[in-house]
Amino acid sequence: MTPVRLALVPGEPAGVGPELCVRLAQQPRDYALTAFADARTLRAAAQAVSLPLRLLGPDDAATRPGELALVDIPNAALPEFGQPDPRNAAAVIDALREAAQGCLDGRFDGVVTGPVHKAVINEGGIAYTGTTELLAEQAGRDVVMMLANDVVRVALVTTHLPLREVADAITAPALERTLRITHDALRRDFGIAEPVIAVLGLNPHAGEAGHLGHEEIEVVEPLLARLRDGGMHLVGPLPADTAFLPAKLRGFDAVVAMYHDQGLPVLKFSGFERAVNLTLGLPYPRVAVDHGTALELAGRGTADPSSLFAAADTCARIAQLRNPTRQPPA
Amino acid sequence: MTPVRLALVPGEPAGVGPELCVRLAQQPRDYALTAFADARTLRAAAQAVSLPLRLLGPDDAATRPGELALVDIPNAALPEFGQPDPRNAAAVIDALREAAQGCLDGRFDGVVTGPVHKAVINEGGIAYTGTTELLAEQAGRDVVMMLANDVVRVALVTTHLPLREVADAITAPALERTLRITHDALRRDFGIAEPVIAVLGLNPHAGEAGHLGHEEIEVVEPLLARLRDGGMHLVGPLPADTAFLPAKLRGFDAVVAMYHDQGLPVLKFSGFERAVNLTLGLPYPRVAVDHGTALELAGRGTADPSSLFAAADTCARIAQLRNPTRQPPA
Repeated sequence: MTPVRLALVPGEPAGVGPELCVRLAQQPRDYALTAFADARTLRAAAQAVSLPLRLLGPDDAATRPGELALVDIPNAALPEFGQPDPRNAAAVIDALREAAQGCLDGRFDGVVTGPVHKAVINEGGIAYTGTTELLAEQAGRDVVMMLANDVVRVALVTTHLPLREVADAITAPALERTLRITHDALRRDFGIAEPVIAVLGLNPHAGEAGHLGHEEIEVVEPLLARLRDGGMHLVGPLPADTAFLPAKLRGFDAVVAMYHDQGLPVLKFSGFERAVNLTLGLPYPRVAVDHGTALELAGRGTADPSSLFAAADTCARIAQLRNPTRQPPA
Repeated sequence: MTPVRLALVPGEPAGVGPELCVRLAQQPRDYALTAFADARTLRAAAQAVSLPLRLLGPDDAATRPGELALVDIPNAALPEFGQPDPRNAAAVIDALREAAQGCLDGRFDGVVTGPVHKAVINEGGIAYTGTTELLAEQAGRDVVMMLANDVVRVALVTTHLPLREVADAITAPALERTLRITHDALRRDFGIAEPVIAVLGLNPHAGEAGHLGHEEIEVVEPLLARLRDGGMHLVGPLPADTAFLPAKLRGFDAVVAMYHDQGLPVLKFSGFERAVNLTLGLPYPRVAVDHGTALELAGRGTADPSSLFAAADTCARIAQLRNPTRQPPA
């Protein structure tokens, strides 16, 4: 029997992604790791941070510390750390797509991704709003963005939307989609048989019985009632300021927030370093780091690898849950 | 010389306010404390929680544990703990107004308030949206609501507004008012000579250079530039999700959030029990508890008094800063 196989995509080659991948490769692991990346960039990163790196062929199972299997996707230009080059945009996007295709084809059991520099990709002439959106489109699935650490899991109904457009985007279908995808993922990927999901209100104090907005009464409450009838355990709509009190959080398997800045500040405050970004709803698990390219740190060896380590561990755990016949290497 | 004199208003008589005031009265203190409340209600609360209470006359300086000076404002009905009675709405509001008037007249140096039950006041036939608003109107001042604990101080540009109205409410005059009042309060009331204030963006990622909304470019940034030219130390507009990272927070004396659910979740997560609610911009300090009436706990003696204790301490410290000739009792 073979271990689960994870695809690893470093993201922006001039950022901290490559060196974090080199660090991850040093870790003992119970899964096989294949990078979709430019060989020269990985080697340059290994040299910059003074760590060994043995690159194996694309079909090898790299399970030992210090080694990575590699699907070589050459960059157009050798990147200088800290100086993103739009000529490499195509290689960054190709790596994401090929790794994801490997998962869709069943050759890989999940994908772990580093930080991408959105503006540089766009400068490179490629329309790109985010890796979550790219993977959703490629797979033809509705997805949900979830950020998680060991304190709280937060799923978002809306993500990168101007605040003035949020209220109109909170529709019953959008909320139902988010709740069903989140519920299914908690059951399948986190092994929680009957997940308890807290749902935040859109308005302060969850609308305070209509005094501070009507969306809770008109949209949220009727939907929650219907989904509860269908067997889901949903708490809310709750006022966002007190839903995150530690004593309350301990009773929830996830918090569904209506928008970005309602849900993410507590998550990042409570454990940014260990936080990961999951894309729920794809046919395979995808887990990303919860930080940016940190160009100013690239090549120095000082970037904190905790988020990438947590992302790989989370992805491997989910892949193993989904593929119970795969075993850790002997 | 005399110590500072604080007015104390318990709020809803059927909630935990009266017993928390009785607990506060037991504490050693370096200020004089005068309750604006119904004598029978305070005595009933003391009896319910088995604590001594000696009520002094309205002109006495009550500085010793176990005693409270009292301006008696009789309730229309003797309240039953846990059962708010709209007939007492007038007394609740009168107590707030009289205590505030005492501050405006210079007879008191600050006011500390317990939780008020908004719906019961309205049922009692009195238009009331909140104590902050009531005190602002009485004093004829623009005010800012600030929530604070020992981790972070958060001031809000908008407070109890439906989310769909927030974007239009973020105008340059509203933001300037909030920043000036917050800045002045940090200097005068917290003794910070050159406060550093973080200003959050309205949109996710603070608008990401216009990709996720234009208010930062059109409203926030020009105003911040102008106020910086005037000498204020303002950081931002910052993305709300990462502004609260603990390492960043340590560099800020306050965070100005654009709306309720952007600013308050981290504050409450990071120390709800010790959090207080300050009204900045009044001619006197007003500090309130950061919790509700907790009707289900009233009369049992189990309610946590930490927030009221912190509110009284904060109010006394500010009053002493503003009145340096007042001295602690010998």
